[in-house]
Amino acid sequence: MSFREDGAAAVEWVASYFERLRDFPVLAQVGPGEVRSRLPAGPPETAEPFANVLRDLDEILLPGVTHWQSPRFFAYFANTGSEPGVLAELLSAGLNQVGILWRTSPALQELEELTLDWLAQLLGLPDGLHGHIEDTASTCTMVALAAARQAKPGARVVVCSEHAHSSVSKACRLLELEVRSASVDEVFRMDTDGLDLTDACAIVATIGTTSTSSVDPVDAIADRAEAAGVWLHVDAAYAGSAAVCPELRAHFAGWERADSVVVNPHKWLLTPMDCSTLWTRRPDHLREAFSLVPEYLRVSEEVASLSEYSPVLGRRFRALKLWAVLRCYGRAGLQERIREAIRLATLFEGWVHAEPGWELTAPRPFSLVCFRRDGSDKENEALLERVNATGEIFLSHTKLNGRYSLRLAVGNARTTEDDVRLAWDVLRREAG
Amino acid sequence: MSFREDGAAAVEWVASYFERLRDFPVLAQVGPGEVRSRLPAGPPETAEPFANVLRDLDEILLPGVTHWQSPRFFAYFANTGSEPGVLAELLSAGLNQVGILWRTSPALQELEELTLDWLAQLLGLPDGLHGHIEDTASTCTMVALAAARQAKPGARVVVCSEHAHSSVSKACRLLELEVRSASVDEVFRMDTDGLDLTDACAIVATIGTTSTSSVDPVDAIADRAEAAGVWLHVDAAYAGSAAVCPELRAHFAGWERADSVVVNPHKWLLTPMDCSTLWTRRPDHLREAFSLVPEYLRVSEEVASLSEYSPVLGRRFRALKLWAVLRCYGRAGLQERIREAIRLATLFEGWVHAEPGWELTAPRPFSLVCFRRDGSDKENEALLERVNATGEIFLSHTKLNGRYSLRLAVGNARTTEDDVRLAWDVLRREAG
Repeated sequence: MSFREDGAAAVEWVASYFERLRDFPVLAQVGPGEVRSRLPAGPPETAEPFANVLRDLDEILLPGVTHWQSPRFFAYFANTGSEPGVLAELLSAGLNQVGILWRTSPALQELEELTLDWLAQLLGLPDGLHGHIEDTASTCTMVALAAARQAKPGARVVVCSEHAHSSVSKACRLLELEVRSASVDEVFRMDTDGLDLTDACAIVATIGTTSTSSVDPVDAIADRAEAAGVWLHVDAAYAGSAAVCPELRAHFAGWERADSVVVNPHKWLLTPMDCSTLWTRRPDHLREAFSLVPEYLRVSEEVASLSEYSPVLGRRFRALKLWAVLRCYGRAGLQERIREAIRLATLFEGWVHAEPGWELTAPRPFSLVCFRRDGSDKENEALLERVNATGEIFLSHTKLNGRYSLRLAVGNARTTEDDVRLAWDVLRREAG
Repeated sequence: MSFREDGAAAVEWVASYFERLRDFPVLAQVGPGEVRSRLPAGPPETAEPFANVLRDLDEILLPGVTHWQSPRFFAYFANTGSEPGVLAELLSAGLNQVGILWRTSPALQELEELTLDWLAQLLGLPDGLHGHIEDTASTCTMVALAAARQAKPGARVVVCSEHAHSSVSKACRLLELEVRSASVDEVFRMDTDGLDLTDACAIVATIGTTSTSSVDPVDAIADRAEAAGVWLHVDAAYAGSAAVCPELRAHFAGWERADSVVVNPHKWLLTPMDCSTLWTRRPDHLREAFSLVPEYLRVSEEVASLSEYSPVLGRRFRALKLWAVLRCYGRAGLQERIREAIRLATLFEGWVHAEPGWELTAPRPFSLVCFRRDGSDKENEALLERVNATGEIFLSHTKLNGRYSLRLAVGNARTTEDDVRLAWDVLRREAG
């Protein structure tokens, strides 16, 4: 095969995909097993041209793709694989680095460390934090809790609000820690009054919860955590990117006091999956939890490897795409995208607020709007299924105070006012 | 920016990189901090063109890259990001899928399941295994041991030989399991005679250990594991790919009885980092360890998501590159690459064997040759440092029976007989 020819075809495929994004049903309209049934049950005996891969991608896989890159994807937290991020993934795959020790890729390790420092500066995090990249926030949170368990032997409780991400419970199951649920106030923020930190090794505060993007009172929680000698982990996986805008920093008050902070550039900072960033001011505890250097990796350099802070030994060159994004947008470009998403969400929120028969179900600090149509949970659920079945837009849901709520999350960089207007039109039309 | 123009430049960059692979020093010849010191300490305020990224990649990052893709990279286990694998990563980044639930990307989930079935067929693994992809073998082994811990409450010991990969100890630290080391015979295979499975939840057998690629007697270990009701995890991260060749299947006798098996296509099966495949015949235990479906992810479909078998919630579209590799090589193409690597390793082994003053230090079942020069450990270590400092080739080391040994691993698909010949010439020249 010719790499240049196939490469040109692959770039053209992606370019054309980006142009066609509004042509596809956003939510895949296939049934379970349908994609698989259209592919052979066994592997080919001999080589096929790369063109066959592109052909089957179009004909067989695309109908089974839910288009996260569609400007009309409003479910979960919408994301963007920006152009520089996507192309940097190509470079990274070509270089095919495996970061094990520093010497196995000095560029990978030093660019990861530098880029995390750049991003910390952009987000207004304190100087001197140790930063590294994991695949997802699930791993970052697990790493933080493993370090917390290490830092306070015998304390086996992790405190978080009932609105904390499910990855906290998942990590606690793995680490055999007990989750103690803290109550929330009427707008879904952790209640610090009745907070019980007995036997706790960690408390997880969230800036931008998954259900409503509510913001826990991190400063007050930090007071309590410090007094009790408990590790404070701040989960800002979604909202953390918004801290590039100084006018939004009030939401982040106190996160500079955290022992660890996770932010997902692969959510709202234009970086393709996967890229989750973790900072800590207590790197020694991460090393105690994860450092292990076998004989065959002992070399003369005295440089700690990033694998000493992480559950895996080998890492790929993820920093390259994050670095490319920071370069190709700059602080101003990143701020512009965050502000536009919030402007669009604010517009939508205004429309819902003004329309009889609809109500907002949570405050909107960032770009997520929670709302519902008057009527039963069943009716709202059926409305969502109808809306998503049109393929015109894709939204998801949550339950707030036991009631079914719809969620519209603006986050894709290609989303325009027209797309959000369309979403509102479709919702009202399907509501009948 | 124009995606087509920048994309063409990125493809050209990779194409030209592949052509220049023999021009670079294999091991990066920079000192700690050198790469970082040549980049700005803070992020740019405004957008830069993508061309700047490519320029700095050439001028600043490349000198800090250890060229895993060089045909003269013989350290650790050499790998290959093949052309179709690299281009599929571009497609995957463009699609930017996030596999959470089946509906968030039916194509991702069904292609991952299908491709793992294809690969199981290629490797001669039994029908009906449940397969999924993780980032690295460290995670796969951790997942397997978490399932084993779940399957046998109260049993907190994991048995493995002293030649098992360090990821076993790392996972056990995370899972708070005790590692019990089993002794090895004179050629580094686990000794089953004195095997003590008391209180064990799992035993890890390795097919292709990291130090010497020795093969534990899996069939005999499976007998013992079955009798004791202990989870058998087979680590075939490196060597597993060789099972595509029927003539090598004897090394894998018994792995079909494993409760879980890990193979790394990103090592010897032409797939770019990261792609580690895990199969299990006890998927229910993985689900018990990892399944957790919060309200906002509850939907009407009755399809188990891959996140229920895995520590993370969201996964990227890794299956696409593995599928592209299987398509573009076919069984015959994969076999050819494995056989050529083994042929080259066999040649090198013959040269060492025939040369006075050098000795082989372990048998060679696959494509890794362990050897040393007559003399002290210090002299061998100094020899290795001199050889790697030339930049002509890159090798790594291990310790066998307390003695320093050099390792030459053939695995990059672009390695030719001339490259291996060069390695031997450099070694003899530097040995003086």
